[in-house]
Amino acid sequence: MTKRDFIAMEEWSPDDVDALLALATRCKRGEIDGGLAKKVLAMVFMDPSLRTRASMETAMYLHGGHALCLEPGKGSWAMETDLDAVMDGATVEHIIEAARVLSRYADALAVRTFPKGDDWTVEREDRTIRNFARYSDKPVINLESSRRHPCQGLADALTIREHLGDTRGKRLVLMWAWHPKALPTAVPASAAIAAAHLGMQISIARPAGYDLDPDDYRAIRALAEQRGGSLDVTDDLDGAIDGAHALYPKAWGSLLHFGNPDAERLLRADQRDWRLTSDRMRRTAGGKGIALHCLPVRRNVEIDGDVLDGPQSVVVDQAENRLHVQRALLLELVGNYSHEP
Amino acid sequence: MTKRDFIAMEEWSPDDVDALLALATRCKRGEIDGGLAKKVLAMVFMDPSLRTRASMETAMYLHGGHALCLEPGKGSWAMETDLDAVMDGATVEHIIEAARVLSRYADALAVRTFPKGDDWTVEREDRTIRNFARYSDKPVINLESSRRHPCQGLADALTIREHLGDTRGKRLVLMWAWHPKALPTAVPASAAIAAAHLGMQISIARPAGYDLDPDDYRAIRALAEQRGGSLDVTDDLDGAIDGAHALYPKAWGSLLHFGNPDAERLLRADQRDWRLTSDRMRRTAGGKGIALHCLPVRRNVEIDGDVLDGPQSVVVDQAENRLHVQRALLLELVGNYSHEP
Amino acid sequence: MTKRDFIAMEEWSPDDVDALLALATRCKRGEIDGGLAKKVLAMVFMDPSLRTRASMETAMYLHGGHALCLEPGKGSWAMETDLDAVMDGATVEHIIEAARVLSRYADALAVRTFPKGDDWTVEREDRTIRNFARYSDKPVINLESSRRHPCQGLADALTIREHLGDTRGKRLVLMWAWHPKALPTAVPASAAIAAAHLGMQISIARPAGYDLDPDDYRAIRALAEQRGGSLDVTDDLDGAIDGAHALYPKAWGSLLHFGNPDAERLLRADQRDWRLTSDRMRRTAGGKGIALHCLPVRRNVEIDGDVLDGPQSVVVDQAENRLHVQRALLLELVGNYSHEP
Repeated sequence: MTKRDFIAMEEWSPDDVDALLALATRCKRGEIDGGLAKKVLAMVFMDPSLRTRASMETAMYLHGGHALCLEPGKGSWAMETDLDAVMDGATVEHIIEAARVLSRYADALAVRTFPKGDDWTVEREDRTIRNFARYSDKPVINLESSRRHPCQGLADALTIREHLGDTRGKRLVLMWAWHPKALPTAVPASAAIAAAHLGMQISIARPAGYDLDPDDYRAIRALAEQRGGSLDVTDDLDGAIDGAHALYPKAWGSLLHFGNPDAERLLRADQRDWRLTSDRMRRTAGGKGIALHCLPVRRNVEIDGDVLDGPQSVVVDQAENRLHVQRALLLELVGNYSHEP
Repeated sequence: MTKRDFIAMEEWSPDDVDALLALATRCKRGEIDGGLAKKVLAMVFMDPSLRTRASMETAMYLHGGHALCLEPGKGSWAMETDLDAVMDGATVEHIIEAARVLSRYADALAVRTFPKGDDWTVEREDRTIRNFARYSDKPVINLESSRRHPCQGLADALTIREHLGDTRGKRLVLMWAWHPKALPTAVPASAAIAAAHLGMQISIARPAGYDLDPDDYRAIRALAEQRGGSLDVTDDLDGAIDGAHALYPKAWGSLLHFGNPDAERLLRADQRDWRLTSDRMRRTAGGKGIALHCLPVRRNVEIDGDVLDGPQSVVVDQAENRLHVQRALLLELVGNYSHEP
Repeated sequence: MTKRDFIAMEEWSPDDVDALLALATRCKRGEIDGGLAKKVLAMVFMDPSLRTRASMETAMYLHGGHALCLEPGKGSWAMETDLDAVMDGATVEHIIEAARVLSRYADALAVRTFPKGDDWTVEREDRTIRNFARYSDKPVINLESSRRHPCQGLADALTIREHLGDTRGKRLVLMWAWHPKALPTAVPASAAIAAAHLGMQISIARPAGYDLDPDDYRAIRALAEQRGGSLDVTDDLDGAIDGAHALYPKAWGSLLHFGNPDAERLLRADQRDWRLTSDRMRRTAGGKGIALHCLPVRRNVEIDGDVLDGPQSVVVDQAENRLHVQRALLLELVGNYSHEP
């Protein structure tokens, strides 16, 4: 049997994703006890985290397991990711050795690695998470890489299903939001893929210059159509919002100016109106559409405080669901758990 | 049932505090097993810690629970504490979302947040810990805020009782000590409140300009008198020490110059003699008074090494008691624990 | 009964070391269950770690215990190590108090403290780890100090035994390797002591100016001879490699220029050929000698990538064995574990 990684939701079959979501719901209901005794998860955080760390650690603990948390460059060694590097510079440990060694201590690895370079043609290959998976003998879970944040995608899917019920034919708007920094595209791509899995009609609303990677558009469209949904891309934000069932505002940077923050900042300078307000919430279907966000969110910048604090916001449910989908994922990948009910 | 926070000792009834201390003693004797299985404590450290982190984590573990440790600005996101902020600056996550989300993962939250600003009229409102409590659905434990360090206060009370027995009529001197930095007043205020709970005769000895907040004096005096004790404030250090049963040296900064370190440094420039020496220990009641400190302590600056290493020092017992009072507090707030003996 | 520390392998009797190694093998085979329930290990990392932290934390967890991880100067207080310091500078907590307090929370302490100063005559006394042991009431485990890394030494010994079988009469070359930085000598000294424990014929190959401390040579030679082996020191790297059974390349700085990085860099400027290549692997006994390293390793600088990825490299086994020897060590020092099989 070969080991199985979880790096992008679309790399698992829709049936397997649905089985995960069903198991997550059973975890949430308190129906699954134990299953991870003597199991160790080694988490490698190359970037900060609140929800991810807290929810993974809690997920392992609740089922009897244990999560290690390593922070390269802080408490742990600065890591080299170039496979052919002559390591006479600042990096101390190669991810090849890190992956191999952690495979010996742990039953699964989980890695967070944001894009760092200035060349999207390199970063889009997602080498760090892919190489961790290549050199680890144990399953590798993506906790957000350059391209994907699939645990967030699972939580998005579970939350949308909980709040909208049957999602076929329902509309989700993934809306670009202004932000003081050029953020990665992993979350918006993963959110759209989650909506595609649910067979939703997806609109991506963004200003000129803020398209996701063409491969992401292809993957979202292919999965959406396979599942009975669709994808369109527009710059008419309010037109897209009219009658939508779910709004997912999210900031991301322009890939056209990747690694060039000054040019990127100029491109979005006049776009602070791309913000989720209560006026926009009222334009949703029946005025009752839901507002999603992966968190952390910039209050009153991406989403207004009254929206976040209001009854249509499901962002805290989304965050809670991170816990339950990860419990399911860990049980599936490394647990002593029977699928029989 | 509403949730219950532990932010300041004087906000709990004296009977409830006494019940906690009694339970702590039973924990220390090894009489309480389990009680926190499947319980998660989410700790948020905005400032460093050794004892607090180690003792909280151990407390959870010893009863079957688990403590998460998040460090905003290091491994976790920099946090915004202004409720109305337009978050277009450096902070990434608002404490409103942090509190709500951690409430979903954990059974209790615990927060350390030292004063950061330069305006005591703002800091004295203790907004960060109060807002965590406001936005968390689960009990919030104060691990030292701008105004209070109530877990330390509990440990102080337990330690004084263990060493002095009946504390009524006994005298404790909270003595200001010189230190290279202007430290917060949370610990001295909490120590005095602990002594007030014990009904002691409290003398606060400090140089001119080093008064605690007037509200702290009021709270200490009110509780002390309710419990049969008293409070006086003096600048006659050695006079206060003569015949005292307990000395609690502690450095703190002048609130008159809060946020103005140069002026503050000047005010204390000539005060290095405010230090606990073995000569001063000999002036205590029968030459056998105890020396307390919350730790970390500046050796040979706040307290001389021979005092710390001598038989009258109870500072390590105090630190140990942090563990036991926190076991009691956690069992009380979130434990499956029966009060019946 | 007095408590027992593990600071240097040669301070334990060879029989006790052999008993540890035998217990480690039983742990690795899965023969030892539990033994550390309700036991707490307090780890103090004054320097970074990946393997050490991950393997100690896993070791405690696998047997039912819990490891705390404190990082002075990061999440925890900056520590003073001078016993007589007047602490009016940058350090906040004295190791005397840290050791005493952690002794109250934990059943054992484990400390990592690399050499920091610029005076080898001071650093060679290994004061920080020795003072932790002096002021702790509980066993202290060395996780790498200025002089020794004995848990690594145990893992080295176990790995060599696993791969070479009967080690008597077999030859190990501890070979100096070029590195961009002047690293400590704790690992090479501990590796040679491990080989001495195994009764091997040890060659230390290093360029002029790169001798280990004379005390280390004495300790290695004494133990090697007691155990039927030998020590020689040479600058003829390839001569030493010819026919060797084990090669242990490792970078370390010149003690002649300790604390003087510019002079030290100059001394090693032309020595980049001191590197483990596949050519050199072919010169070993039957072309089948093993390659060891403590990790982290500088790929293509200390050891070529094809050697690390090839069948003669046992570096990942070594890293795995850190886990098993530490399980044995913890069971021995603080476990409820019976030696009876």
